[in-house]
Amino acid sequence: MQPRIAHASGQSPSSAEIVIGRLLKDAKGPLPDLLARVVTSLHALVRETRPTRAEWCDVIAFLTDVGQASDELRQEWVLLSDLLGVTALVEEINSQHSRGVTPNTARGAFYRADAPWLPLGANLSLDGVGEPLSVRVRIHDLDGRPVSGATVATWQANGQGFYENQFPDLQPDRNLRGIFSADQAGQVHYLTVKPAGYAVPNDGPVGQLLGRIGYVPRRPAHLHFIVAADGFETITTQIFDGADPLLAEDALFNAKPDLAGDFRKEVAQDGRVRWSLDFTFVMARAAARRQ
Amino acid sequence: MQPRIAHASGQSPSSAEIVIGRLLKDAKGPLPDLLARVVTSLHALVRETRPTRAEWCDVIAFLTDVGQASDELRQEWVLLSDLLGVTALVEEINSQHSRGVTPNTARGAFYRADAPWLPLGANLSLDGVGEPLSVRVRIHDLDGRPVSGATVATWQANGQGFYENQFPDLQPDRNLRGIFSADQAGQVHYLTVKPAGYAVPNDGPVGQLLGRIGYVPRRPAHLHFIVAADGFETITTQIFDGADPLLAEDALFNAKPDLAGDFRKEVAQDGRVRWSLDFTFVMARAAARRQ
Repeated sequence: MQPRIAHASGQSPSSAEIVIGRLLKDAKGPLPDLLARVVTSLHALVRETRPTRAEWCDVIAFLTDVGQASDELRQEWVLLSDLLGVTALVEEINSQHSRGVTPNTARGAFYRADAPWLPLGANLSLDGVGEPLSVRVRIHDLDGRPVSGATVATWQANGQGFYENQFPDLQPDRNLRGIFSADQAGQVHYLTVKPAGYAVPNDGPVGQLLGRIGYVPRRPAHLHFIVAADGFETITTQIFDGADPLLAEDALFNAKPDLAGDFRKEVAQDGRVRWSLDFTFVMARAAARRQ
Repeated sequence: MQPRIAHASGQSPSSAEIVIGRLLKDAKGPLPDLLARVVTSLHALVRETRPTRAEWCDVIAFLTDVGQASDELRQEWVLLSDLLGVTALVEEINSQHSRGVTPNTARGAFYRADAPWLPLGANLSLDGVGEPLSVRVRIHDLDGRPVSGATVATWQANGQGFYENQFPDLQPDRNLRGIFSADQAGQVHYLTVKPAGYAVPNDGPVGQLLGRIGYVPRRPAHLHFIVAADGFETITTQIFDGADPLLAEDALFNAKPDLAGDFRKEVAQDGRVRWSLDFTFVMARAAARRQ
């Protein structure tokens, strides 16, 4: 009996096939197909990069550390997926909308479901720190008709680039978060402060790895939105400061041309700075659901 | 300014290139090249498998669990690497020996550096449980000359397929382990018990994943060896029971034809069973080291 085994040449083209044949001998369903593709890709990558035994141990240690650095407050694997552009790619693959619809991006790590419902015109800033920003958003369908009654949830970093739940001691609870209902004209307006861009936290294994190649992941300033309405596909996205010099190098690969906003600066006679932003979200009608 | 960003088509061939360009803008050394290949491979795999957002969350959760299941006693990432044949592939890549030299395999999870030094002829079995096995190994160079004074470390599972450090309550400490010095003829002999094959532990996230496709990873019976001698490449390997029906489906992909041993059965007049194994290790001279 000749065992079906991996040969010692190191050049055999079939190590992945051998593994797949072994694992999937009696398997059914989509998971086996996924595993087969993972094994094929992984073996090809190992043959291509030819790690030494010690280097492979380093890889195992890194993968272990990424899991062990994750807890309820920090998801280091999500961070790695974000910084390698995989989260954005998965989002792309699952957002095959018509041209003209506002693109989706990842929801990001700092979302909270328990943001306060606020009346139109409210101020999201609970500490009054930062340069004032007046935001007006319009929600349209693809034909330009207003989507009245749409729900608009928004959250953002402050003028130092920090979310309130990132360092809870530094800002009031639920600062710079709110949920609004659009008026009959499909519009929402509110006051807030101008957000700043920021460096992505780099004190975990992922940050340490990227630090070794001199990469400091940074994000341009942005506002997060989730726009939902009956009969429409929900939009989860970010509106970026189109003038932020980091716009071209968003570490999370979410900044798209269609999501660049025009933050207009106004200087009053007393020298005080005030900003305004107008942005239109374009929603797609939801596809008919199967019963 | 046109941002360098991932386009929303989902078909763009350049998402990996965009990520690589961003990450490696100022990078030097071999790590950037490795990262670039990982990103390329990962993006290709994601495009090919097209996970939904929920499926990608499942992947993230699995990767996190594998790290969190690892501790000083259990290395679940090593197990995954083993069961997907990657450990064996890394071993192959790093074992480009001359034809005729005994192949290396992975050292495995149950090695202990503190095994006892024993005199030739000693019995490794401290509890006397199992069918007696007499082992004689010869250590040669590629020209058939004995390698006198070689060091032979060996360890193995018992007749139920368990290592002493796997369930420490079930066997005496350091049972079925020993280190010997070969005699002038390059030979080592000792007594032990015949090992059994076993199912790989499947109570962690990796076992659960493979359980979902109906795969139960098993290993044929084997003895572990590390054979070392001055001036020779160390051999870390396993000698398999050539008659074990699991030989063709070793879950760790270590069983190679050159490592199949002939376990000979002898039945004494009183009906008692006794086994013997002769095996020859062929060592390669160490390549000259750089100063």
